[in-house]
Amino acid sequence: MIDLYVVTDSSLSRGRTDAEVARLAYEGGAETVQLRIKGGDGCSMLSQAKEIREIAYEMGRFFIVNDRVDIALASDADGVHLGQDDMPLEDARRLMGDDALIGISVSNVREAAEAYEGGADYLGIGPIFTTSTKPDAGVAIGLDAIINIRREVPEIPLVAIGGINRGNIKDVILAGADAAAVVSAVVAQDDIRGAAHDLRDLILKIRPHVPRR
Amino acid sequence: MIDLYVVTDSSLSRGRTDAEVARLAYEGGAETVQLRIKGGDGCSMLSQAKEIREIAYEMGRFFIVNDRVDIALASDADGVHLGQDDMPLEDARRLMGDDALIGISVSNVREAAEAYEGGADYLGIGPIFTTSTKPDAGVAIGLDAIINIRREVPEIPLVAIGGINRGNIKDVILAGADAAAVVSAVVAQDDIRGAAHDLRDLILKIRPHVPRR
Repeated sequence: MIDLYVVTDSSLSRGRTDAEVARLAYEGGAETVQLRIKGGDGCSMLSQAKEIREIAYEMGRFFIVNDRVDIALASDADGVHLGQDDMPLEDARRLMGDDALIGISVSNVREAAEAYEGGADYLGIGPIFTTSTKPDAGVAIGLDAIINIRREVPEIPLVAIGGINRGNIKDVILAGADAAAVVSAVVAQDDIRGAAHDLRDLILKIRPHVPRR
Repeated sequence: MIDLYVVTDSSLSRGRTDAEVARLAYEGGAETVQLRIKGGDGCSMLSQAKEIREIAYEMGRFFIVNDRVDIALASDADGVHLGQDDMPLEDARRLMGDDALIGISVSNVREAAEAYEGGADYLGIGPIFTTSTKPDAGVAIGLDAIINIRREVPEIPLVAIGGINRGNIKDVILAGADAAAVVSAVVAQDDIRGAAHDLRDLILKIRPHVPRR
């Protein structure tokens, strides 16, 4: 889970399938790929999910499905990522079992505490910076949100998301995020493998400088 | 399953929730309500599904969820209805188990035979007539499609759908459908209960006149 978390977006991937993007991202060092398809049909989504699941398994990485618990179950993904408007955590947990990884999108301390108490395995905090990737992502909450959530909910992995790129990835780690999730900074690049590698490298290099909590 | 099958559509229901529509449809005599929400979020869909599930249980009727196997599982629905582009039948069956009702949308004999052989519990055949309710429904396939599918796949319940109303419901039953599915002919009416009652009545009255197969 920790380090670099790549979220797919077929509208940004220049004709490469989500599974192709996932393979390159894993090869570049991403620990986790989240398949996010908004408005797609279940048949093609499941087909991509099964492909990515195979690649993740071969490479010993994590594979998470956005929103659709059924696609996660049918593809035997490691888990599911749920927004505040998706299926509630407790329902998803009941369907997926205790071993599944369930991540919850949060944008403030209240949501973070609720997800933690509900048994989330990690939190996606965002959007940290302004992002054009996800039009419904809401207003940027800034690095302070990471600091505040880290202080109130210290026990759970935090994955920062939203407008993260080479220029600012060290800031989210310094603010207390365990990992950074990126979309266009990997998915939209010519060299997906290289982009993932560089971003992960930046995370690893900044780690020794993170203030001990 | 048999007789009248009502499919929800919140864009047609004039401000009544899908659960309100479902209750009135069941009260009017519908055996089955299918919750169909396209593009809605999982949280509100599951909330409606749980409400309808309660009503169906109280009244001893069937409740089916369109497309979303996870919502069907989380709401403990009787089953799921899948289009040709949704999750494949075999994946859905694996997740839902043998007791779940799984219906498949088909529009020709080939799809019908495939769904039957794959273990579908019923087939939704359509669109029989031109319909404005479902813009992606494709071109009307006419009553002959029911006759042809009935002849080739005699063992499975057939639910006709697409543009069915008071004026033509008897035709689909005479052509060999076991049941008729309606959307606007119930959901968009002032008197949902009365509309469901009248349509079911028309089905029951035409039944004795259906040629024995």
